[in-house]
Amino acid sequence: MLDQLDQFPEQGILHVFIKHTSAAICINENADPSVLVDFESIFNHIVPEQLPFLKHTVEGPDDMPAHIKAAMIGSSVSIPIVNGQLDLGVWQGIYLCEFRNHASSRRITITIYS
Amino acid sequence: MLDQLDQFPEQGILHVFIKHTSAAICINENADPSVLVDFESIFNHIVPEQLPFLKHTVEGPDDMPAHIKAAMIGSSVSIPIVNGQLDLGVWQGIYLCEFRNHASSRRITITIYS
Amino acid sequence: MLDQLDQFPEQGILHVFIKHTSAAICINENADPSVLVDFESIFNHIVPEQLPFLKHTVEGPDDMPAHIKAAMIGSSVSIPIVNGQLDLGVWQGIYLCEFRNHASSRRITITIYS
Repeated sequence: MLDQLDQFPEQGILHVFIKHTSAAICINENADPSVLVDFESIFNHIVPEQLPFLKHTVEGPDDMPAHIKAAMIGSSVSIPIVNGQLDLGVWQGIYLCEFRNHASSRRITITIYS
Repeated sequence: MLDQLDQFPEQGILHVFIKHTSAAICINENADPSVLVDFESIFNHIVPEQLPFLKHTVEGPDDMPAHIKAAMIGSSVSIPIVNGQLDLGVWQGIYLCEFRNHASSRRITITIYS
Repeated sequence: MLDQLDQFPEQGILHVFIKHTSAAICINENADPSVLVDFESIFNHIVPEQLPFLKHTVEGPDDMPAHIKAAMIGSSVSIPIVNGQLDLGVWQGIYLCEFRNHASSRRITITIYS
């Protein structure tokens, strides 16, 4: 998506915001694909489906866990822009975390300020 | 609280910050009240009181779990302002998450920048 | 680190960003050192090493749990500046959360905007 952006300012912040409550945005390790697999497995382990006390189940067993994972991860990231480039570390990449089992497309809003 | 704000700028960011370490701010599903009930139940399940290894217990068994939940959720949210309005998704609302069993009032700082 | 900064603006935001995926930045209780001990113990309890289903283990058993903890806590904090000072609550301090057992130094980027 960032390919469609024009040039970054010399200094500033990139803000990426997701307009949903069962998906999230974070920064994590972007080198080894096995990190993505484990990322999903661990969050499923910490916030399992079928917890017996849940009330909000009308949208399926994966819905309420998705809300919790989304709250844990967060709905936005803010990344510094330094010398006209995103100031990410070597291994960092932006994750869009989809927590529903069958989701449709997701909408994000990107803001750049300098 | 946002009713007391004057007009938003055309474009910008709203930043909501909570000045406490046992409460948090996040964005989550704001339609079905059962989400709020499950939100609290799941976080109590993940971070229970009475973990046997805890040292910081002088302020009560709910204090240290509250600090952990607050760190997981975060102390602020940043929300885009687009065309003079908060650019929240259809189901999104701002949560003030109170993690103490008996808390007094909480103070937040709201910053708008454009 | 903040001692090296020149004066803050009258109003603005301080953004602290960590350029790593196995360490994180958050705000938490900065008064009683036992909070720091419990903070580490609880996160080790929630995200233990040696989960049997993990794939990304080449960098050691503490690496993948560190990525998860980092995603839960987040890679940055944004703090209001009011009247030329950080608008932190009485008990709040900035944590750099190191989640590797043997880490080298960490790099952060600080941005102030007003």
